[in-house]
Order: sequence, then C-alpha cells, then structure tokens
Amino acid sequence: MKKISESTIRRLSKYYRSLEQLVEKRTDTVSSDQLAEMDGITSAQVRKDLSFFGTFGKRGLGYNTKALKKQIGEILGLVKEWRVGIIGAGNIGRALVNFGEFKKQGFKVTLIMDSDPAKVGERIQDLTVESTDRLTTLVKSHKIEIAIVAVPTHAAQRVADDLVKAGVRAILNFAPISLKVPPNVQVKYENPAIEIESLSYFLKNS
Amino acid sequence: MKKISESTIRRLSKYYRSLEQLVEKRTDTVSSDQLAEMDGITSAQVRKDLSFFGTFGKRGLGYNTKALKKQIGEILGLVKEWRVGIIGAGNIGRALVNFGEFKKQGFKVTLIMDSDPAKVGERIQDLTVESTDRLTTLVKSHKIEIAIVAVPTHAAQRVADDLVKAGVRAILNFAPISLKVPPNVQVKYENPAIEIESLSYFLKNS
Repeated sequence: MKKISESTIRRLSKYYRSLEQLVEKRTDTVSSDQLAEMDGITSAQVRKDLSFFGTFGKRGLGYNTKALKKQIGEILGLVKEWRVGIIGAGNIGRALVNFGEFKKQGFKVTLIMDSDPAKVGERIQDLTVESTDRLTTLVKSHKIEIAIVAVPTHAAQRVADDLVKAGVRAILNFAPISLKVPPNVQVKYENPAIEIESLSYFLKNS
Repeated sequence: MKKISESTIRRLSKYYRSLEQLVEKRTDTVSSDQLAEMDGITSAQVRKDLSFFGTFGKRGLGYNTKALKKQIGEILGLVKEWRVGIIGAGNIGRALVNFGEFKKQGFKVTLIMDSDPAKVGERIQDLTVESTDRLTTLVKSHKIEIAIVAVPTHAAQRVADDLVKAGVRAILNFAPISLKVPPNVQVKYENPAIEIESLSYFLKNS
C-alpha cells in the first residue's frame, strides 16, 4: 500500500468515530457532505481520502456506514486486540486504565507499573500496579505491543530505553519531552499543555 | 504580526519546553543544532522558525537560552495567567486539575464542574466540584477564558453551546466528537485514542 501521511491517518480516525456514531444510531448511509460536516473537513477532502482507499460512494446514496467503518477499521489496524502497558500510575496513568475509547477500539491495557513502592501492589480496576524494577521482564511476558509513558519528565527517557530493550516498537508519550528511540520505533506525543498553548496564542492574537 | 501556522506554534511550544530544561540546568546558550536534536526537528527548520520572529543566534555561540525562552513565551501568550475551567470531574478532569505543566505555564484551573449530583460538592485539590446547572453563571463570575470539556460524548456539544453562551472563546475538547462553534471560537482536540490509532496503523503496516 502507498504510504499514508500522518494527517490522513488522523482524518481516518475521525471518520471512523463519526461512522461509529452513525452505526449506533442505525443510520445506514452517509454522504461525503455529511461526513465533512461532522468532522469539520471539506467534502472534497473526504472524497479524496476515501477514493484513495478505493472506496467510492454511490451518487445520490452515499457510503454504506457499516461497510465504510469496517474498511477504515481494517486500515487503522483496529481488527485485532492490541496489548497495551502503562508506565506510571499517576493521575494520567489511572485515567487511561479506565479510558472507554481504548477498550472500544480494541486497545487492552493489561499492565500498569510505577517506580513508587507506595503505589506498587495497589489495585486499579482489575489490574495490580507492578514495580518498574521488573519492567523488561513483565513487558515481555505480557507481550506488550504499545506502551504508554506517563512518568515525570526526568524519568521518561530511561523508561523509553527500557521499553525499547524489552522489544516495544510503539510508544505513546505523555511526558513533556522528546524521546530518543531507534528508527524502527514509533513515538506519538500527547501533551495537553501544547494544545492549550495554541489556545492562549489564539486568544492573545485575536 | 504575520499569521503563524498551527504547526509552527506547536514547534514553538516544543522549543519552549527544551529551553526551560536548559535554563533549569543553568545552560546559558544553545545552538540550533542542539535545539533540533532535543526536539527531533531539522536544524534548518529551527533556524527558519526563529528567524521568522526576528531572533538570530550568534555564529559560534548560538542563542541565549533565557532570552529566547522569554521571547517565545511572549509569542505563545505565556506571560499572563489564564483562567481555566474544567467541565467534567471524571478521571481526565481530575488528572488535569493536578497537571503540573498547566500550573508551570500559567494556566490556572479555578473551576471544575460536573452534572452528577454525587460528585458535586466533592473536593479536588483546593477546588469544590460545582454543578453544571450553574455553568453559565459560574463560568462568567470566574471569568473563565479557556474551558476544558471532559464530559461523555453525548453531553459535549450541549456543554460547548453553554460555554459559548457564557462568552468562552477557547475550548480544549477531550470528548471524541467534533464540536460545532461560531467562527470566533477556537477548539483544540485532545484524544489519546486518535494518537494510539496511528501507532496501531504503524505496527500493522511495518
């Protein structure tokens, strides 16, 4: 398959969510205009994205919601269950164990770890917080495919190094620092502070 | 000032964080190569971004970390305290009340609200959870400038409508849905599920 850009993947994730809502509401078909309106994207862009994947709406009928949802889900890799480990049992780590959107999309959190002895052994939902002293061993034995780094800034790079050693190739990082990883490892960043700063920029300059 | 693109603002936020780390470590100067390395950006891009703002490093010396941090902070609007309200006292809302990066950057959470009577009245740090029945009144009296929407999907658009009525012009939305707002209101989205899906895409296709 041709290489798909980051921004296209992000739009596919948005379409996927809108289609999910439509399927839940038992809406059978959707036009590119409607999808565009739901996601705040131009309808030309929607048609371009979908035709790229060989999907074409029927003139006057639009797309079949279930079929399109299934197809986009396959592209995004949502057809299997992914094993997720969370490093850091602070507020963010805890919130993510319970994050409904992960469960719904097949991202199963099977491990949560912390370096703080006071937190180790604590129950969060049906998981027990494990010690990061055993990170490599447990990440391997749990067959973690995607790791979430939710530790303080100063510890993030060390944790990332350990994850890479344990064979993890995909990291979602909440620590406000750029992680250095080998080229075969993918890191995505999630930092509410970066988003809020584009809002303060907007308020200041408008 | 010329209009700055979203992606430039995002890079400025990254530089700002790296400069903050350097200032904390009492490092006085930094080269564009070092900043590039810290943020995983090309050094040509760093120089281009900074020259756009009239900042030029000294050949062989680089940039003064403190001065550059101050200048970027001013561009991002980080020189004043912003009043932030959080709607939704679930896991994410709670995590954000305590989010260190917000405090450090001058985003002060002064209000948290929920529609669940069981949560109203509860203490979270030094705040008391207020009822969303009083949203418009309290958002106004607290002079909230930036609102964070951390409610379930089905409630998000109604909350956004109320926030707009109360005069809020900047919203950070954690609900997995596109919000419809007037053109003078800015919405930013934060959804860990979207980021994790680009990781599953990566794992599936590599």
